[in-house]
Amino acid sequence: VKIDSLRKLFLEELRDVYHAEKQITKALPKMAKAATAPDLKAAFVQHLAETKGQVERLERVFEAMGKPAKGKTCKAMQGLVEEASELLEEDIEPAVLDAGLIAAAQRVEHYEIAAYGTLKTYARLLGEEDAAGLLQETLDEEGATDKKLSALAEGVINLEAV
Amino acid sequence: VKIDSLRKLFLEELRDVYHAEKQITKALPKMAKAATAPDLKAAFVQHLAETKGQVERLERVFEAMGKPAKGKTCKAMQGLVEEASELLEEDIEPAVLDAGLIAAAQRVEHYEIAAYGTLKTYARLLGEEDAAGLLQETLDEEGATDKKLSALAEGVINLEAV
Repeated sequence: VKIDSLRKLFLEELRDVYHAEKQITKALPKMAKAATAPDLKAAFVQHLAETKGQVERLERVFEAMGKPAKGKTCKAMQGLVEEASELLEEDIEPAVLDAGLIAAAQRVEHYEIAAYGTLKTYARLLGEEDAAGLLQETLDEEGATDKKLSALAEGVINLEAV
Repeated sequence: VKIDSLRKLFLEELRDVYHAEKQITKALPKMAKAATAPDLKAAFVQHLAETKGQVERLERVFEAMGKPAKGKTCKAMQGLVEEASELLEEDIEPAVLDAGLIAAAQRVEHYEIAAYGTLKTYARLLGEEDAAGLLQETLDEEGATDKKLSALAEGVINLEAV
């Protein structure tokens, strides 16, 4: 495919993040299962439900663009998920594992914050206001999740892990 | 290695970001070469110098912790850099390439923002104030770079690429 317009680049990046979100829906149940602090477990379970909503929202963005929803391998998210999986295989204390899981999850959130920020900007520049609105909704959710994880990390888990 | 304390997790994550920064110092010259907008080229060149300073700063953090500076393969950054490299091989219009390079660079910045945010929090909890201060300096730089890239994307390059 020749990428000769911002619209085509937008679609390529939409496919990237669609694949990334699908990978996250597979990783979160494992992270929820591994987490030991009940608050953290609950946060992962809640974020899984939210992520499924974000996948559906992306499908509405594809629809708004008149394109079929299709993923494209997101290597960055593969690396991020792999790092989180490796953590689950480490010989690690429970409270330290929780801290590590939060760190991994915040890296994932920041990938998404960057990706949705770019997509929203492109949608605005392309005059695709419906798509831009949907992308902004997800961007707000990701930002809130990141803040929640920071609070969990600072308030409880790291102190237990010291 | 048994990761039985936040201190050990901190060191593991320090090694991860040290390896990530070294990968970035290799990727940035290619991105600067490929960028077509002079402002963007200049931003990548400037960020390369800054990144080299961040590598040295990490070495000071290792020193403050009484540990040798040593990297540990950061798979997430490998994925991020690979995505940026793939972009350089696409059949792509120059202005669209610039937009894509900014998008890739912002994903890299956000990985670092998440990583340094976590490290700084850990350093504070561990009472390692010197390390925390150094990490905060880099965190501020990464945040500023991300904002600069957003301004470049919104102001000039994406408009040319529409």
